[in-house]
Amino acid sequence: MKKKADWREFQPLIESALKRYLPSDTAYPSEVHEAMRYAVLGEGKRFRPALVLSACEAVGGNPKQALLPACAVEFVHAYSLIHDDLPALDNDEMRRGKPTCHKKFGEAIAILAGDALLTQAFHLLSEAKPPEKALHLIRELADAAGTKGMVGGQVVDILLARNGANREVDLSTLDYISQHKTGRLIQASAVLGAIVGTSSSSKIKRIREFGWLLGFAFQVVDDIMDGDGYLRVMSSDEACQKAESLIEKAKQEAESFGKKGKRLTSVADFLNVPVGSKN
Amino acid sequence: MKKKADWREFQPLIESALKRYLPSDTAYPSEVHEAMRYAVLGEGKRFRPALVLSACEAVGGNPKQALLPACAVEFVHAYSLIHDDLPALDNDEMRRGKPTCHKKFGEAIAILAGDALLTQAFHLLSEAKPPEKALHLIRELADAAGTKGMVGGQVVDILLARNGANREVDLSTLDYISQHKTGRLIQASAVLGAIVGTSSSSKIKRIREFGWLLGFAFQVVDDIMDGDGYLRVMSSDEACQKAESLIEKAKQEAESFGKKGKRLTSVADFLNVPVGSKN
Repeated sequence: MKKKADWREFQPLIESALKRYLPSDTAYPSEVHEAMRYAVLGEGKRFRPALVLSACEAVGGNPKQALLPACAVEFVHAYSLIHDDLPALDNDEMRRGKPTCHKKFGEAIAILAGDALLTQAFHLLSEAKPPEKALHLIRELADAAGTKGMVGGQVVDILLARNGANREVDLSTLDYISQHKTGRLIQASAVLGAIVGTSSSSKIKRIREFGWLLGFAFQVVDDIMDGDGYLRVMSSDEACQKAESLIEKAKQEAESFGKKGKRLTSVADFLNVPVGSKN
Repeated sequence: MKKKADWREFQPLIESALKRYLPSDTAYPSEVHEAMRYAVLGEGKRFRPALVLSACEAVGGNPKQALLPACAVEFVHAYSLIHDDLPALDNDEMRRGKPTCHKKFGEAIAILAGDALLTQAFHLLSEAKPPEKALHLIRELADAAGTKGMVGGQVVDILLARNGANREVDLSTLDYISQHKTGRLIQASAVLGAIVGTSSSSKIKRIREFGWLLGFAFQVVDDIMDGDGYLRVMSSDEACQKAESLIEKAKQEAESFGKKGKRLTSVADFLNVPVGSKN
């Protein structure tokens, strides 16, 4: 019996690529390289990089050729977590069962390690081939990470928190935060894989739609887990319904790629697994 | 009598390009865009972007075609100042006669505005033409900004400060900090301009040497102004001699480009002007 295609099969490949593309922790000045490796390596499920590879496969590409953007996306994700965890932002002391980067290395080194990971992400992408695709990847990732994407979502999230957790919030603000803070980088992960795997703009467009649905669903599921966000404006049942509907549509998009889209479908399926095992 | 070519003539051109390439402060979420514009616009001398344009001119290019990388470099410079000024790093409350970004907008928005400026710098460079040059620019800037460059210098500087300002420090550590924290981005500014202006790798190499000398000199002059850094291991006279020697060599490199290098020579000349008017 043939094994079911599953995105988790990509994890070892991704893990070794991440180690390879991170600066050695013995390189001078070692403190910042240790902090970068600490933040990236270890407990991650590699959801985003596996999505890059799965989307590449779905559009007909060789997933191994998407390892470079896969690592770039994970570096951006790791940088965003380091900065998000800082005392001035979420002030988190633990992440994935270990001290956050600033608790371990101090705030200054943590801030700079985050900066360096963001910089390294673009450096990595500049090595992609051919040049036109490399630039396409860089534009897509910069769009997703900047104020029209992730940073924009973080800003609105912070302003909302500043106004007090109990203050009234409307659905459109929550949608904005979900779609930008979390959704945009997940969408970009899928798109980056598609850019590597195909030159067909219509396939890339379909993957973009898939990524949007998946990224949105990811945040709704996250809110259900945390009992926050959408649960401030809708019941748990309504939120689950919203998530299910988004996941269903995402799966339909993934399935439209036929046999090659099986692993991408498994990525959407993952959002159904019990809460707490995602990250 | 013909007016002497001076890099300051580029300032209005740069100022309007910076305004154009920054997100509008009315775009949602406005808080982060206001913070980005606050950090970039206003009092800067635009030393680095003018250096980009002057180097482009020296190698025979049209300086206006280097405006995009010129703005990218200034965004990276501004991001580094925002993060450097944070309480966890230098804890500065004033810069260029106005409150630092985090004093004005709060730490969280300041951190994110810095992140967004770094991201925007790479987005800008991805628009440069042709693609091969755009990638060359991105690699050069990422190298200069990352742990092999500016961030590396900041890390060593922080670790030195952490060990106490009066603790013994050796010349090689001070050289490392100067050449990386300040020097590398100044060098990259010159190299970016050269990449836009020529395809001759030997010209780019000469500009790289010029940029190295200029960036190193810049930090030595800065230390003389601040009474810190090199003045911990050498006399004021010795430091001045060191700066003069570097500036002289830089000028010789610039002059080797003949008439087209006159403006680049004026950049090196600027380091001789009285302390306090630089930034």
